[in-house]
Amino acid sequence: MTTDHLFLRACFRRPVPRRPVWMMRQAGRYLPEYRATRAKAGNFLNLCKNPELACEVTLQPIDLMGVDAAILFSDILVIPEAMGMELRFLEGEGPSFPAPITSAADVRRLGDPDPEVELGYVMDALRLIRKELDNRVPLIGFTGAPWTLATYMVEGGGSKNFALIKRMLYAEPETLHQLLEKTTQAVIRYLTAQVAAGAQALQIFDTWGGVLSKPDFLEFSLRYIHRIVEAVPRQTPTGEKLPVIVFVKGGGQWLDEITATGCDVVGLDWTVDPAQARKIIGGRTAVQGNLDPTTLYAPPAVIEQRVAAMLRAFGDAPGHIVNLGHGILPDIPVEHARAFIRAGQAEVGK
Amino acid sequence: MTTDHLFLRACFRRPVPRRPVWMMRQAGRYLPEYRATRAKAGNFLNLCKNPELACEVTLQPIDLMGVDAAILFSDILVIPEAMGMELRFLEGEGPSFPAPITSAADVRRLGDPDPEVELGYVMDALRLIRKELDNRVPLIGFTGAPWTLATYMVEGGGSKNFALIKRMLYAEPETLHQLLEKTTQAVIRYLTAQVAAGAQALQIFDTWGGVLSKPDFLEFSLRYIHRIVEAVPRQTPTGEKLPVIVFVKGGGQWLDEITATGCDVVGLDWTVDPAQARKIIGGRTAVQGNLDPTTLYAPPAVIEQRVAAMLRAFGDAPGHIVNLGHGILPDIPVEHARAFIRAGQAEVGK
Repeated sequence: MTTDHLFLRACFRRPVPRRPVWMMRQAGRYLPEYRATRAKAGNFLNLCKNPELACEVTLQPIDLMGVDAAILFSDILVIPEAMGMELRFLEGEGPSFPAPITSAADVRRLGDPDPEVELGYVMDALRLIRKELDNRVPLIGFTGAPWTLATYMVEGGGSKNFALIKRMLYAEPETLHQLLEKTTQAVIRYLTAQVAAGAQALQIFDTWGGVLSKPDFLEFSLRYIHRIVEAVPRQTPTGEKLPVIVFVKGGGQWLDEITATGCDVVGLDWTVDPAQARKIIGGRTAVQGNLDPTTLYAPPAVIEQRVAAMLRAFGDAPGHIVNLGHGILPDIPVEHARAFIRAGQAEVGK
Repeated sequence: MTTDHLFLRACFRRPVPRRPVWMMRQAGRYLPEYRATRAKAGNFLNLCKNPELACEVTLQPIDLMGVDAAILFSDILVIPEAMGMELRFLEGEGPSFPAPITSAADVRRLGDPDPEVELGYVMDALRLIRKELDNRVPLIGFTGAPWTLATYMVEGGGSKNFALIKRMLYAEPETLHQLLEKTTQAVIRYLTAQVAAGAQALQIFDTWGGVLSKPDFLEFSLRYIHRIVEAVPRQTPTGEKLPVIVFVKGGGQWLDEITATGCDVVGLDWTVDPAQARKIIGGRTAVQGNLDPTTLYAPPAVIEQRVAAMLRAFGDAPGHIVNLGHGILPDIPVEHARAFIRAGQAEVGK
């Protein structure tokens, strides 16, 4: 078994013959095979909770697209559900919590889930995926950042202005801190269990960190991400080094602070200038990203030009994992996704 | 008549006894008096097109809230409408163009409006507002940036991923440049006419510049903003200096480039760190902003603390106009808006 995967080497800024490529949301609706498996599952949440089907869709982009890493198929909101909140995914409407958190009493009622019990289906999926992957590529586990999870838990679903959670932030900051603290503990146990079950890298997604001012981001989001980075295992049960990736959408102005969490890789959205990011981060971490996901609407020739320009902008220093700057969109033609992956993998001599 | 308004002095980085305060979207739904005038007008577009009623709502925040500048009540989308596109505002749905731009032929069919004809109602409103203001505070005219206008013209309305305009950007960049060029010309004529009709300052709103990568922002948005800044009059018909404000929501990573357009004031959204912005901009321009609009959900005592912290963060150097980091939200209590204005105006000795 080789442990010398391109992806892991790049995470630790070791030289690679070519850069590794994967795509956020690579097991997703743009793939007809994913849509077929999801139809078999009946709905999205069933798909997350069925280890065999979750394994099936996790492996599709490896087999069909040739990406250099697998990422567990799941949803960030399984943690609040495991903490006791009812979670609904209505077709075409996005996720919702019909009984959102509104008070300190609501926070106190949240449970402290045991990942092998309430989230046992995730651990079963990880074990099965590792077996089926047979070490072809490494397997990434993941979580939502506590702030991002809390936005859904307090807003009850997606939000435009984040009015409810920001009201709580300003008027009852202690309640919000209690919620973030409890969620952080659940996330740490969850990621620790993911590593025990076979995850070889971990990514923390802070989808909504970018809606905060800098002081609020530091206090209500990054502080908890930092705690998670410090608490999770940094090696696998068999002793291999395990990298942690932190991705904050809209976090381009705070790269120095994100880097200082001690993560191994900083994920970048597409608004971040690659050269400037490399300069701010220096040699402290690897970087991941960051093509505008809408670029994949373009003709393949344009996609190739754009990827080539991005590779040049990141430069030749080791430690670049090619990815999109956010998840692949559901209506991207498969051939365009392939053009992205091919262009990212084409380069040699790095 | 004094021409020594606090707002204009701050725009030109001259010392002021206290900082001037205004709020983006200050003539808006949070004010019961605005809702009453809008009900009289029947709908939003009628309100924009009736100079007497537009004047009435423009003056409400001056009379009722005591802000230090008035801003023309209008909508950025009156320009595409004047260029020949049918514009609809459906109650509770936001604006839409039922026949969006899809091709170079569509762009060629757009008209070159004469602001005193197709947009005569705006000029009439400006003349009336200046008269009614009687020089109590200065009057700000405004426009949407060409990129932001083009997003609505191509998407046909609001958008989540900007799929249509980005497809055009990647696949037919020349068509998009033609659209931006034609819109830029219309904007320049429009702002020039606004100055002739009485505007004493101009603000360019780039609401959607922040959804682009840096090279795309420079090529498809800032380049045209730069052209506008260079082309519009920088003094009033009576010879007073006239400042230009550029506000790019999500533009915090490109402050240096925005400053280099030659504008007088850079508007900042709430994700921007005030001290860092001052450092990047140096003494080149004044700055405007940048309290998170959701802060106004907080109790007045918290609003006061947050404003005080913001004033400290911007520092004592001249050239700070106190504002929100985006428009005031429609469900903010009036007393909370007053707390913001009072706190911004409280400071002395600057």
